[in-house]
Amino acid sequence: MPFDDQKGMAIAIEEAKKGYAEGGVPIGGALISEDGTILGRGHNMRFQKNSAILHGEMSTLESAGRLPGSAYKNCTMYTTLSPCNMCTGACLMYGIKRIVMGENETFVGGEDWIKEKGVELINLNNQECKDLMAKFIKERPHDWYEDIGE
Amino acid sequence: MPFDDQKGMAIAIEEAKKGYAEGGVPIGGALISEDGTILGRGHNMRFQKNSAILHGEMSTLESAGRLPGSAYKNCTMYTTLSPCNMCTGACLMYGIKRIVMGENETFVGGEDWIKEKGVELINLNNQECKDLMAKFIKERPHDWYEDIGE
Repeated sequence: MPFDDQKGMAIAIEEAKKGYAEGGVPIGGALISEDGTILGRGHNMRFQKNSAILHGEMSTLESAGRLPGSAYKNCTMYTTLSPCNMCTGACLMYGIKRIVMGENETFVGGEDWIKEKGVELINLNNQECKDLMAKFIKERPHDWYEDIGE
Repeated sequence: MPFDDQKGMAIAIEEAKKGYAEGGVPIGGALISEDGTILGRGHNMRFQKNSAILHGEMSTLESAGRLPGSAYKNCTMYTTLSPCNMCTGACLMYGIKRIVMGENETFVGGEDWIKEKGVELINLNNQECKDLMAKFIKERPHDWYEDIGE
């Protein structure tokens, strides 16, 4: 039986909240294999680490460390927000099987590309994810635009 | 007058060689603005830093640090090898204007996506870039496949 998507998203949301508490962008992720093993989890670290590349999904992949390519193939990437082109590309490069996102009202990333490549994409339309981002963007609009290269 | 592409590639190759000397994958990059300012430069750090995300272009973006989105818009990303989907997505997310690659015989990354998004893509078909990768892959095939998630 595949891992419960609501449980996966709960971990990603926990990460997003940690990020917010640290003064960062509240986007979190979790990389979970079919049998429920949490290979990685993380959150956006742009402001905490002055990083141009540590979006939520990238931090998650980095926290999983170096893995053989085969390790990703039965995994789901949980992310609280529609993955930007960078994070989309990273998931596709590693051949991640499914992407489950909290919402895509705040921002729409590389969804067309994900579908084109035949990767399953699920939107949980989660209100908590939307609320976290709405609060952050209201407080720090400039920082949000910087994070997505706008 | 735009920055000389051969000079940009020379920096990327210098980075690739540094990476090889450190025991890493010999792929390097440089992010250079229209007026010739080197905003960032770097090389693949997978083995040096046990990193799943520090490909050559990602290291280059990270070395440039946090910049406003506008800073990328007149930049060229020089990379010794065709950018994988992750690095392609990162360049697209930041709205980098041009991508100049050393070669794409060793590997073809997200080139279709780059063209589809209207980003200029130039292949310098550089023999030194090909030779660096051929040597590395002959010596460490397993490490190369790991680097590209295969």
